[in-house]
Amino acid sequence: MSGTWSERAQEAMDRKVKPPGSLGRLEALAIRLAALQETLEPRMDRARILIFAADHGVAAEGVSAYPREVTAQMVRTFASGGAAITVLARTLGLEVEVMDVGVDAELPELPGVVDVRVRRGSRNFVQEPAMSPDELESALEAGRAAARRAAEAGVDAVGLGEMGIGNTTAAAALISALTGASPAETVGRGTGVDDHGLAVKRSVVEAALRLHAPHLSQPRTVLAAVGGLEIAALAGAALEAARLRRAVLVDGFISTAAALAAVRLDPEIRPALFYSHRSAEAGHGLALTVLGASPLLDLGMRLGEGTGSALAFPLLKGAAAVLREMATFSQAGVSDKPGQGSP
Amino acid sequence: MSGTWSERAQEAMDRKVKPPGSLGRLEALAIRLAALQETLEPRMDRARILIFAADHGVAAEGVSAYPREVTAQMVRTFASGGAAITVLARTLGLEVEVMDVGVDAELPELPGVVDVRVRRGSRNFVQEPAMSPDELESALEAGRAAARRAAEAGVDAVGLGEMGIGNTTAAAALISALTGASPAETVGRGTGVDDHGLAVKRSVVEAALRLHAPHLSQPRTVLAAVGGLEIAALAGAALEAARLRRAVLVDGFISTAAALAAVRLDPEIRPALFYSHRSAEAGHGLALTVLGASPLLDLGMRLGEGTGSALAFPLLKGAAAVLREMATFSQAGVSDKPGQGSP
Repeated sequence: MSGTWSERAQEAMDRKVKPPGSLGRLEALAIRLAALQETLEPRMDRARILIFAADHGVAAEGVSAYPREVTAQMVRTFASGGAAITVLARTLGLEVEVMDVGVDAELPELPGVVDVRVRRGSRNFVQEPAMSPDELESALEAGRAAARRAAEAGVDAVGLGEMGIGNTTAAAALISALTGASPAETVGRGTGVDDHGLAVKRSVVEAALRLHAPHLSQPRTVLAAVGGLEIAALAGAALEAARLRRAVLVDGFISTAAALAAVRLDPEIRPALFYSHRSAEAGHGLALTVLGASPLLDLGMRLGEGTGSALAFPLLKGAAAVLREMATFSQAGVSDKPGQGSP
Repeated sequence: MSGTWSERAQEAMDRKVKPPGSLGRLEALAIRLAALQETLEPRMDRARILIFAADHGVAAEGVSAYPREVTAQMVRTFASGGAAITVLARTLGLEVEVMDVGVDAELPELPGVVDVRVRRGSRNFVQEPAMSPDELESALEAGRAAARRAAEAGVDAVGLGEMGIGNTTAAAALISALTGASPAETVGRGTGVDDHGLAVKRSVVEAALRLHAPHLSQPRTVLAAVGGLEIAALAGAALEAARLRRAVLVDGFISTAAALAAVRLDPEIRPALFYSHRSAEAGHGLALTVLGASPLLDLGMRLGEGTGSALAFPLLKGAAAVLREMATFSQAGVSDKPGQGSP
């Protein structure tokens, strides 16, 4: 055999007992997974949703429909299994690990929650950078470490997920800073702010972009200026999981903002990123377009937590199985494309 | 509690610990499943793909890229587990049952294949009706019986699937006859005919519609005139599964044609039908529009066999679990939507 893994996987796919190309994007997925795993028998048996939770100083500006306490309350809900992502993961057979990268609350030890807290919430980025350079490195490393734990445990894919009241504001600022898009294009209603809240969010992001303008030329300084602890951790997880040749399922708006930052830090990770769904959040389409990404699902979801990652995993699992397990025309003894149009 | 099951399920969904509506179509799915099962705790634990296989007399006109023998060869491949649908079902935890409603070949007893053969292939509908009225009833009943077996076995959903060389031609004729759409709108390349093959398919469907014009006023006579044995069986399965309040996952072009016929026979079944994916086959969009259907997936697939049904099942499974298992705001002790916009 010769050629790249992609070429060899494509040839193998074309021998499978089906009209060429008839499995559409599932075939392209399978070929990408084969290239990522450097095998013609890719496996997607196990996935782990990595949920990074943190608070945001900018929440003090009134940018969210929910109070700041909800971040900690939802971490408890992840631990007790009653959140959307924990229900979906349990039902679909995925693992979940929750990282407290920066929740601004006292939390007891909770099952499935790893304390990697960098500080109690990022700083309010309309006043100062969200993170110091050291804090940013710690948050990135929290993500990398979670990816390494997942890889060592033998998972084939990690799904990005997050929780953080205020984080659609940080994600919008990050996307604007990384792409030059105006806040009008990147700021949306998040968990459901009204028109007033939306106006506040936009002006907050505008103010932040003005304040930090001198420091927005590098992805690292952008992340520190207007990112968030969980967003930096998501970027770190994507970078490390990709380096370890694990598939990375990118969730919605926040995770895509983190993926964009990660891709700017290291464009080589692109082949490992699988965009799970198109969020209903306003700025997601723009970020996806910039990334050249066409998500697998479009269900009007905008919850985060990794819910899109979880729902898209069965598609990767199915794609890998098709390449690994389907019979070829000759194995199946089925007539290959033949006297086309003949009676 | 009062109100319809849909109303009660919507209220229950709105108490779940997430911003209202933030799970998008997943919420609507869950509510439909609750109404179908008449419970606020819907379950989607088990699904069975029902694959109906038959040959088509019209295949003699040269309408397919593959020879007629492939129908029987693929039935053997289903039995040996090497086909796309058997791989996907195994990987995603679905059951498969194959019904030989009319394969035109000697077949031995095969594991997982039920012999309910009505005749060796439908008749060539450019010359005569595809089925006699009795043959049509037998094919419908083969489908109903498969749905009853599935329900008795305790499955929550059946997925429609099929195999039959020539069946995109029959499905196109059926959709044209049921909707008045011209063959130019309903005939596509199927498994991959070239331009000549496509022209042949169109003229075959045009000829059939002219020949049977006097008998195309009722869905039953349309099915008999230009349907196929497996298409009639699919319609029977959809009708009976819906009557038994099982979710019916409709696959692609052929299954949607059968669903359209079934809905014309009994519009009451609509709430049980879940359209799994948008096929790349040309006429599928038209049929979906007529049915008011917006499929869950859009992956450019055009294989049939029930592959779309299988890939969409995890979405139904996840939707049911969300309504059944997610905590409410009060159970989770999470602050519900509050001082919106407050700091």
